[in-house]
Amino acid sequence: MNAKSIPGGTITSAKGFLGGATYAGLKTKGSLDLGILYSEVPCVAVGLFTTNRIKAAPVLLCQKHLVNRRAQAIVVNAGCANACTGERGLEDAAAMAKLAAGRLGIAPQDVLVASTGVIGERLATGLIAENIEKVALSKEGGHELSQAILTTDTYTKEIAVAVEGGKFIIGGIAKGAGMIHPNLATLLCFLATDAAIDAHFLEQALRKEVDISFNMITIDGETSPNDTVLILANGLAGNEIISEGTREAEAFQAALEEVCTYLAKCIAGDGEGATKLIEVTVEGALSLADARVAARTVASSPLVKAAIHGNDPNWGRIIAALGRSGAEIEGSKIDLFLNNICLMEEGCPYTFDRDEVRAAMMGSEVPIRVCLNLGSFAATAWGCDLTEEYVTINSEYTT
Amino acid sequence: MNAKSIPGGTITSAKGFLGGATYAGLKTKGSLDLGILYSEVPCVAVGLFTTNRIKAAPVLLCQKHLVNRRAQAIVVNAGCANACTGERGLEDAAAMAKLAAGRLGIAPQDVLVASTGVIGERLATGLIAENIEKVALSKEGGHELSQAILTTDTYTKEIAVAVEGGKFIIGGIAKGAGMIHPNLATLLCFLATDAAIDAHFLEQALRKEVDISFNMITIDGETSPNDTVLILANGLAGNEIISEGTREAEAFQAALEEVCTYLAKCIAGDGEGATKLIEVTVEGALSLADARVAARTVASSPLVKAAIHGNDPNWGRIIAALGRSGAEIEGSKIDLFLNNICLMEEGCPYTFDRDEVRAAMMGSEVPIRVCLNLGSFAATAWGCDLTEEYVTINSEYTT
Repeated sequence: MNAKSIPGGTITSAKGFLGGATYAGLKTKGSLDLGILYSEVPCVAVGLFTTNRIKAAPVLLCQKHLVNRRAQAIVVNAGCANACTGERGLEDAAAMAKLAAGRLGIAPQDVLVASTGVIGERLATGLIAENIEKVALSKEGGHELSQAILTTDTYTKEIAVAVEGGKFIIGGIAKGAGMIHPNLATLLCFLATDAAIDAHFLEQALRKEVDISFNMITIDGETSPNDTVLILANGLAGNEIISEGTREAEAFQAALEEVCTYLAKCIAGDGEGATKLIEVTVEGALSLADARVAARTVASSPLVKAAIHGNDPNWGRIIAALGRSGAEIEGSKIDLFLNNICLMEEGCPYTFDRDEVRAAMMGSEVPIRVCLNLGSFAATAWGCDLTEEYVTINSEYTT
Repeated sequence: MNAKSIPGGTITSAKGFLGGATYAGLKTKGSLDLGILYSEVPCVAVGLFTTNRIKAAPVLLCQKHLVNRRAQAIVVNAGCANACTGERGLEDAAAMAKLAAGRLGIAPQDVLVASTGVIGERLATGLIAENIEKVALSKEGGHELSQAILTTDTYTKEIAVAVEGGKFIIGGIAKGAGMIHPNLATLLCFLATDAAIDAHFLEQALRKEVDISFNMITIDGETSPNDTVLILANGLAGNEIISEGTREAEAFQAALEEVCTYLAKCIAGDGEGATKLIEVTVEGALSLADARVAARTVASSPLVKAAIHGNDPNWGRIIAALGRSGAEIEGSKIDLFLNNICLMEEGCPYTFDRDEVRAAMMGSEVPIRVCLNLGSFAATAWGCDLTEEYVTINSEYTT
C-alpha cells in the first residue's frame, strides 16, 4: 500500500477543506444535525446515488447540480430524509442549497445537499435558515460534520490517507444504519481530496470502488431512497492532473479503495443492533457477477445472520443461501470455511470440533470463505449479525 | 364458490385415501415424525419443487419417481431434511421409499418421499426400518399425518373441500416455518383428490395455483432445498375425466385455488415467531410480474415487518420497499391503504389519525393495499411480522 493512514484523519484532512456543524432542532435529541463541508476553491465533483426508484429530493437536486461535475460545498442534515415529499420536497432541498450558498458566498448550483432521517415529513427549512450561520467552519470541523450525519449509528466513521508520501490526501466520512424515528437506514458517504484529477477518471474510479465496497455491504436488504456517495477534489495538492492509465491514477485508485472499504466495513459492523461484522468471501466463481451475488446473498441471509449471532456453525444455512443466490454452483464441489476452519470439503460435511468453531465465532468479526471451484472470480461482501435488538429498534413506536 | 369446506376435513377426506403416522425417534422430542399417505389405487401424480440449486435427496427422488406421473403413496419424515448429504443421501431416500413400498405392498417407484428437519445430517434409515410397520393407516389418519410433518409450526394446517355438490373432494395438509435444530423452514404441502383427472391438466392447474398461493408467501426470504408440493388424484370419485376447457376443469381449478390459498395463508401466519398475518395487495401494475414482485417485496421487507410488529403506520417503509422492488412505479401516482385507511394519495401523504390506524393494526391480520395507477394487473402476497422471537428461535444454539 502506498497510502498511509493519517491518525485522527477525517474529511477535512485534505488541503483547503473546512467543515463544521451545529444543532438546528431537526433531531429531537440535542445532538448535531446540520453540517457543511466547504472547499476554499471549486472542486471537480462526482456522485453516485440510490437505485431505489423512489429518490429523495436531495438526491434529485444533487444529480441536477452535478451535471457540470463541479461543486464547492455539501450541506447535510439529519432528522428528516426529505423523501416522499413531492414537489415541495424539491423546493425545500433547493432552499437548503440556497441558504448554504448564502452562508458561504457561493452559487447555489455549487452546493450539494444530503438528508437522512424520517421519510414523508417536510424539511423544516425555517430551522435551517435560523441556524445555518451558527455552523463554524474549521480544519478540525470534519469531526463535527461526521457527528452531524449520524442517526442511530453508534460511532463516527472517519478516515484520511496520505498517498505517495503525502503528494495528496483522501479523506472521508460516512453514516450507516440508523434512525431517529423508525425509518430506513440511509447510507451517506462524503469523500474529499486535494488531488488535481480528471473528472472522467474520478467518476470511473469512484464507481469501481463503490462497487466493491458500499455496494457489497448489507444490513437488512433495504435500499434507502437517500443513499448518496459524493467525492470532491479541489486540486490544492498541486499535483499534475491525474488521468486514466498513469501511475498516479493507480495510486489514487488504490487509496480510494482503502478509504471506501474502511468506511463500508464500519457501516456493516455498526448495523442496527449488530454485535459482529460478517465478512463473506466467495472464490472460484464462474463470473464476477456470480461471485458478487453469492457473497451478498450469504451476507444478507437472515438465517445465516441469526446463526452467527448465536455462535452456531450451522453451515447448512450458508449452503442453502448459496443455492438460492442464482449463482452457478455445483454442490459436490463446494469447500466452506468458517473462521478459517474447514466445515465442508467437495460438498461433503467435514468432521470438525463444534466447540472449537463456536469459540472462534465469539469474536467481533466472523469470516466465511466459500470456494466454488468452478472458475477464477472472487468477491467479498460484508454484513452483520441479526439480533433481537434489530427488531426492537425497528418495531418500537416512536413517531 | 362451488367448493364447500368439509368440517374436520383433511388430506384423507377424499375417497380411497388412508393415512397414519408414528414416532420413529427422528425428532428428539417424542412427537410423531414418520407418516404415510396411501391411496387404495394408483394415482395420477404431479409435483412442484424448490428452485434452490441445492436440492435435497428426497426432492431428486420424487422428480425421478414422477416421470411417469403416477404414484400411490407418500412417505414423509420430520427431524432430518436429508439435504447436503451427497450420494449417500440419495441412497437413503431410495431406501426410505423401498421400506414404505414393502410396508404397503406396492412398487418403490410408486412411492414419493419428503423430509424436513436439520440439513447436513444423514437420515437414520435404521429407525425408519424399525418403525415403519407401526404406521397404522386409517381414513382419519390424515390428522396424524398432518402432525408428523410439523417441526416448530404451532398448529396443523389441514383442509378439505367438496366440489360440485360432492362430485369429488380435494384435501390437503401443509407445514411451514419450523425447526427442530436451528434450520431452514421447509414448505411441504400434500394434496389428495378422488377426482378422475387428466395428468397434463392437473400439472397445469397445480402450477397455476401454486404460483398465486405458495409462491406468494414469504417468511424470511429463504428458499429451502426441500420445498415440495405434491398432488395425488386417484379417480375413485367416478367422475368423467376432467380435462382442460371443461366446466368441471373450472370447478376443479377454483376448488384447488381455495385449498392452496388457505394452506399458504396458514403457513404465512404461522411463520417463526410471528404474531400477525400481513396481506399485501398491489393493484394497477403495468404487468403481472410487476404486481407480483412489488407485493412480495413489501411482504418480505424486514423494516415493514418490524413496523407492523410494533403497530407503527410507518408508510415510508412500504413506499421505499416498492421503490427497490424493480417494478415500474411512479411516486406521484401511488395510493396506499393500511387496514383500509388511506395513508397516501397520488404520492402525497394523506392526513390520517395515527391512533386510529394503530388501533386497527393491532388485529391478527394487517392488510396493505397499494394502487400503482399505471395499468390493470394485480397480485396478493402474504407474510408475517418480524419479531424478536424469530431471531431468538434462529440464533439459539441447539445442535
